[in-house]
Amino acid sequence: MVKKKNNKKIRIALDAMGGDHAPDEVLKGCLEASKDNGLEIVLVGPESLVKERLENYSPNHNSGISFVNATQVIEMGDKPVTAVKEKRDSSIVVGIDLLDKREVSAFVSAGNTGAIMTAAWLTLGRKRGVNRPALGAVFPFPTGPVLCLDLGANADCKPGTLAQFGQMGHIYMRKIFRIESPRIGLLSSGEEDTKGSQMVQKAHKILKRSKLNFIGNVEGRDIASGKADVIVTDGFTGNVLLKLGEGLGEMLLTSLRKAVAENPALKEAALLLEPTFQSVIGTLDYRQYGGALLFGVNGNVIVAHGRSDAEAIKNAVNTARRAIAQEVVEAIGS
Amino acid sequence: MVKKKNNKKIRIALDAMGGDHAPDEVLKGCLEASKDNGLEIVLVGPESLVKERLENYSPNHNSGISFVNATQVIEMGDKPVTAVKEKRDSSIVVGIDLLDKREVSAFVSAGNTGAIMTAAWLTLGRKRGVNRPALGAVFPFPTGPVLCLDLGANADCKPGTLAQFGQMGHIYMRKIFRIESPRIGLLSSGEEDTKGSQMVQKAHKILKRSKLNFIGNVEGRDIASGKADVIVTDGFTGNVLLKLGEGLGEMLLTSLRKAVAENPALKEAALLLEPTFQSVIGTLDYRQYGGALLFGVNGNVIVAHGRSDAEAIKNAVNTARRAIAQEVVEAIGS
Repeated sequence: MVKKKNNKKIRIALDAMGGDHAPDEVLKGCLEASKDNGLEIVLVGPESLVKERLENYSPNHNSGISFVNATQVIEMGDKPVTAVKEKRDSSIVVGIDLLDKREVSAFVSAGNTGAIMTAAWLTLGRKRGVNRPALGAVFPFPTGPVLCLDLGANADCKPGTLAQFGQMGHIYMRKIFRIESPRIGLLSSGEEDTKGSQMVQKAHKILKRSKLNFIGNVEGRDIASGKADVIVTDGFTGNVLLKLGEGLGEMLLTSLRKAVAENPALKEAALLLEPTFQSVIGTLDYRQYGGALLFGVNGNVIVAHGRSDAEAIKNAVNTARRAIAQEVVEAIGS
Repeated sequence: MVKKKNNKKIRIALDAMGGDHAPDEVLKGCLEASKDNGLEIVLVGPESLVKERLENYSPNHNSGISFVNATQVIEMGDKPVTAVKEKRDSSIVVGIDLLDKREVSAFVSAGNTGAIMTAAWLTLGRKRGVNRPALGAVFPFPTGPVLCLDLGANADCKPGTLAQFGQMGHIYMRKIFRIESPRIGLLSSGEEDTKGSQMVQKAHKILKRSKLNFIGNVEGRDIASGKADVIVTDGFTGNVLLKLGEGLGEMLLTSLRKAVAENPALKEAALLLEPTFQSVIGTLDYRQYGGALLFGVNGNVIVAHGRSDAEAIKNAVNTARRAIAQEVVEAIGS
């Protein structure tokens, strides 16, 4: 049990065992994030191990960190539903329970996405009218912020589910970004209504009949072009796209480093243009945008990238903080 | 009818009416490509219109261009199967017929992808053991060439179809790039076998049982990382990815131009680094890689991007030329 203190600190539960670089990178990120005096981070995981490792990095870690024991770990390759049912003392299940009991205001994990979604869905419950939760993130493209969802919660989607993602995206961009009538685009393999998979063609028809400002199909190139405020897609496509963006950012950086290594005269030019590259690559970098929000469940759940390092974890905690402040959960559905 | 001449020129049919910028950009690209003395381009479309427009650009166009009349046009939004059945005198159907009769060695079109695939499939027939043709292109990433397929021929795929794409990719990279045992990666939303849509999970099992050098699931970030020689995916995901790559390349260029406009001192730096950007962006630019090959049909069919400009058309004709020289069709299946 987390002792309830008489302070006004915001409490965020952090899965100490989630992600490829857990627990070490999670703990380092936690230490960074806990420098914020208004925050208390509740580390969820095998308590003795977590405490011991944390001591390594910061023997006198500050009072902004507390611990909740969870002896099991859901691995990245575990089947979500089975894992959530069988590993009741895992950091994911215990962390979501803390959120359900309102002992924390948000839960952050870089662990198994499917398991986080399943635990959140089963324990916290869904918002009214939502069949499936979706992972969404706002990308700060030069043309303006774009909310993309689903980024990986549902590898298989039904047409009506995609339309609901559009509805959640509409509410979010209206309430959080104050866009009067957010433009909803459906990601497809062509602009024409007849393009796309059978599922997408059916989703198109449902969205067209809806009251949303549905601008029709958008293509991959439109994601960053400013054509839509919300990009709706299934979790499989969304996840692949997200990671392609990262990969291309890395390819650009690698090519630049190689060019400078081969021709040192380019070094100054590369340094001058670095802020510009970073502003482009940063929009695609999970370390910087800090994880995705789970839309449609009764609680603030942030899924950080599986490869998260300390900086990514720190930014995911910041994303959680913003979601709490913006009352995102309250905004979406009732 | 194309008059058969007693020269050794390679004949390539080009759909004059295919693409968003047809016929003008197609004709300009045709004029560029026809400067090659070893080539005869057979323009397929409404003959009087095509000739009249061509005269505008080049009153004395050279002898490397001939004409075949086709009075109908399949539009981008037309339903492929219906369009191919009903518009028998369309440039796509007539062009594929020329290829079927061996009057040309390849057919190039920037028109309706589904219609090109349908016409090719119905008329030319499939290679033995191939259920569905796939659009594939080789991307010259800094880490080496990577063949991605399907890029848009099949928005809906069955698991066995994806496995066949792997097989075709294997043969192509072996014969054309002389890679002994090409590494085949299945695009998914996670590396673990359990990740991905139901369809991808089933395809994974089939590929695992095959004799291919199957390296398992790869993620979006692995496309450009050199992890695999062949990336297998369905045509919906492939198409969206392809266009995201283009969009991000454009975003980078726009940001650089904006940075230079705001701070002219950056101009020199941008010029110095331009070749590096171009080498990165160029790998994602359809204008430069020149269209995708239709794998699995009995004939060289090249599908150029719907937005093709003259340069893209010229490069698509070059892709056709290379496919003829490399005997790609002969290499894949029997």
